[in-house]
Amino acid sequence: MIKKIEEQFLQYVKKMMSYNEAIQLMYWDLRTGAPKKGVEQRSEVIGILSQEVFKMSTSEEMAAFIAKLSPKHEQLSEVTRYTLEECKKEYERNKKIPADEYKEYVVLQSKAESVWEEAKATADFALFRPYLEKLVEFNKRFIEYWGYKGNPYNTLLDLYEPGMTVDVLDEVFRKLREHIVPLVQEVAASPNQPETSFLFHRFPKEKQRAFSLELLRELGYDFAKGRLDETVHPFAIGLNPNDVRITTRYDERDFRTAIFGTIHECGHALYEQHISETLIGTPLCTGTSMGIHESQSLFYENFIARHYSYWKRNYPRLQQYAPEQFSGVSLDAFYRAINEVKPSLIRIEADELTYPLHIIVRYEIEKGLFNGTIEVKDLPEIWNDKYKEYLGIRPDNDAVGVLQDVHWSGGSFGYFPSYALGYMYAAQFKHAMLKDLPHFDELLEKGELTPIREWLTERIHRFGKTKKPLEILQEATGEALNADYLIRYLEEKYKAIYQL
Amino acid sequence: MIKKIEEQFLQYVKKMMSYNEAIQLMYWDLRTGAPKKGVEQRSEVIGILSQEVFKMSTSEEMAAFIAKLSPKHEQLSEVTRYTLEECKKEYERNKKIPADEYKEYVVLQSKAESVWEEAKATADFALFRPYLEKLVEFNKRFIEYWGYKGNPYNTLLDLYEPGMTVDVLDEVFRKLREHIVPLVQEVAASPNQPETSFLFHRFPKEKQRAFSLELLRELGYDFAKGRLDETVHPFAIGLNPNDVRITTRYDERDFRTAIFGTIHECGHALYEQHISETLIGTPLCTGTSMGIHESQSLFYENFIARHYSYWKRNYPRLQQYAPEQFSGVSLDAFYRAINEVKPSLIRIEADELTYPLHIIVRYEIEKGLFNGTIEVKDLPEIWNDKYKEYLGIRPDNDAVGVLQDVHWSGGSFGYFPSYALGYMYAAQFKHAMLKDLPHFDELLEKGELTPIREWLTERIHRFGKTKKPLEILQEATGEALNADYLIRYLEEKYKAIYQL
Repeated sequence: MIKKIEEQFLQYVKKMMSYNEAIQLMYWDLRTGAPKKGVEQRSEVIGILSQEVFKMSTSEEMAAFIAKLSPKHEQLSEVTRYTLEECKKEYERNKKIPADEYKEYVVLQSKAESVWEEAKATADFALFRPYLEKLVEFNKRFIEYWGYKGNPYNTLLDLYEPGMTVDVLDEVFRKLREHIVPLVQEVAASPNQPETSFLFHRFPKEKQRAFSLELLRELGYDFAKGRLDETVHPFAIGLNPNDVRITTRYDERDFRTAIFGTIHECGHALYEQHISETLIGTPLCTGTSMGIHESQSLFYENFIARHYSYWKRNYPRLQQYAPEQFSGVSLDAFYRAINEVKPSLIRIEADELTYPLHIIVRYEIEKGLFNGTIEVKDLPEIWNDKYKEYLGIRPDNDAVGVLQDVHWSGGSFGYFPSYALGYMYAAQFKHAMLKDLPHFDELLEKGELTPIREWLTERIHRFGKTKKPLEILQEATGEALNADYLIRYLEEKYKAIYQL
Repeated sequence: MIKKIEEQFLQYVKKMMSYNEAIQLMYWDLRTGAPKKGVEQRSEVIGILSQEVFKMSTSEEMAAFIAKLSPKHEQLSEVTRYTLEECKKEYERNKKIPADEYKEYVVLQSKAESVWEEAKATADFALFRPYLEKLVEFNKRFIEYWGYKGNPYNTLLDLYEPGMTVDVLDEVFRKLREHIVPLVQEVAASPNQPETSFLFHRFPKEKQRAFSLELLRELGYDFAKGRLDETVHPFAIGLNPNDVRITTRYDERDFRTAIFGTIHECGHALYEQHISETLIGTPLCTGTSMGIHESQSLFYENFIARHYSYWKRNYPRLQQYAPEQFSGVSLDAFYRAINEVKPSLIRIEADELTYPLHIIVRYEIEKGLFNGTIEVKDLPEIWNDKYKEYLGIRPDNDAVGVLQDVHWSGGSFGYFPSYALGYMYAAQFKHAMLKDLPHFDELLEKGELTPIREWLTERIHRFGKTKKPLEILQEATGEALNADYLIRYLEEKYKAIYQL
């Protein structure tokens, strides 16, 4: 009896996941080359399918599955058990918000995003302010509906990083700030600044693409399970573990955009390509959290592709693709140039060292908004003050300040910390990996990247969502979140580069 | 009351059509570049969505819509009325076949297709024969379930060309055969054979693509509503009128494959791009029949792109793309070469003149199978005899004979005549068009193709499925199907080229 219900439940979920896969492919297509006059009708198709998935996730049928299966959970297979848990979480989250209120919120989101675009284009925070206020209000009400433990903001964090709390973040972000802020200042004051002008020569797109493909293959990205396309905003998308696509953007005056961007997305893609195939057709067949996902992209982008040994192998190849640009530049000069630190106003253009500070600014503001210590009207001022304090520079308009990111306009609060968490996780994974692969640097130098990828697959990738992020971290590294590894990495690396 | 049911019905249908659009995009993706290891899972997703559409088309809800709306059809909008008619036809067709039997048939189809592939590869008809026999048996039973008027084969013809009958086809195909067979013989005996060796120089793919894009733009293909990709088997696919994609294949040793193939698909695409947008979300938003669809592709491929005046304009451009290949070849020599007639065994490689004979062979065989005068076991012999009789050549194995086409392996009987019908329609449209656009040749020469496309849109494209094929033909040309126009076109053209 229970087996039959279990089977029906899995079929039901598989149908939802199939619709999701179709929706994802339509998104990929819209972003990579769908004819522009077809966008409106395609968006309607996406809307109709999404609505169907939403209906299924909150239907009476779903309620019945949850009611029948939950009490017998010890009789279910492991996959069913975790799937049921995910579905239940989703069901409760969606059911607790009154339908009318949710509908109003969806309309607000889409309106707010287009107003934000205009506000950003004209650097006019006042235009966006009433929308942002409403978005915050809605989310405050949602937190009340959903309930919270300790701090209201925890509920939002949990959406992206299950189990993460303000208590933990306050502690790690304080540590990061205390170490990074003075280090950035020391770096800025160093007389040993890298020469970078050679980075900006014209590097034709086709050659950047050819080099990117070569690097991707070596990193282990499986082209029989993926493809590389071009988009304005690069992304990785996992349709299923056997179809994980990435995109990149080519700047002919700065090859770093494509190379480091592609490798970043490759990190995300390697995660999705190596999730166990047994999870296909369930909501478990994806990364376990935003933070763990970002740890994989940052591991590849920073801990591999900004490493000296990686370029010891790959710089001569790069030189072949652009001999005029690099023939007179030594490996050491190249390495220092691609690791230049320069405090900037824009998060997505930030270097490795200053990046966490951008996230800390956003974390502190979000926490304040949901704890009632910060009001939306004061955001520009607070934002600018924090940039001045942490990064030493002050935005002279809100387009390069508080209006720069799309996240809040879509009502995504609690997402930003994932970026910095991912970075800390990556450093912690690297530290643990060194115990098993002490010759890590040598592997990079030889282009033997398989053992590294396998280490990550064994401990992270294959589980999909069957393990929680903090469980993965604990089991892979033997300890809870520890900011020291990232701090140590940054201090050692940048003290050497800037000869401090 | 009736208005409310009408509204619900249209919403219901819109959902089915949205699923179909998603399915179509997944097919396009599978054929153009989906990662190969993802194919299996994607096929499953397509299966799940297709099953859902099938369920909806045969559901009790659909039955209720039909029952409630049909008696009040004069109160419905025109679009609803035709939509209802389509849904009813589909409903009855699907409901009349017992579910178990249909399921068995679907399994047989997919098995038969893979067996056919192997049989073709090894030229082994005996391997395919039992499957083909079963496919014919199933279709005979379906005809019994569905009923037929006059001739059992009419029911199959009606699937692809609503209203078409054996009586009509017997007459037009007899005429075609009587004129084309002797003409082909005369052509073969002519001492004035064109020189064609220059066609086969190496013509790089990128240049073929650039030239194709230029031609497509001039023909009026709207790239804001479409795109051109590369596939092994070229096709056009209309996701909706604002997203109609085409694909082509490049043969670097024969540029004609890509150029004429692209223009052929462009003809299909122009049809789909110009269906009235008011039909989006209904089953009326596509070509009215296979024959009318083919008339558009053949109009562009043959009546435009194999016309002397078209190359008077475009040959100098082609020469610029491949100067070495064509600099010593006159326009006249080029025109004669691309219109060479050469009886061949393979339908898809046939020239304009012999093409209808390939279709007539298939028509006569299909009709015989469903009238009980031909048995599957005798097919290779009958096929080969007919090729010898009509085309003067005899296949020396079944791979280039009866096994060459995929259609029968999927159970598609009654489809082939559409190809020749489309050709006759196209000639008849051309004749009618000349009354409105007497300077047709001049328009081609000047590259002014808009009036031609507009003529077709006005009389054919915009209606989608709201007019039946024979209605369109009658209204656009003032008469019923008449094979004379095609015969006259072929006789005049080829007598001139071969100086008969």
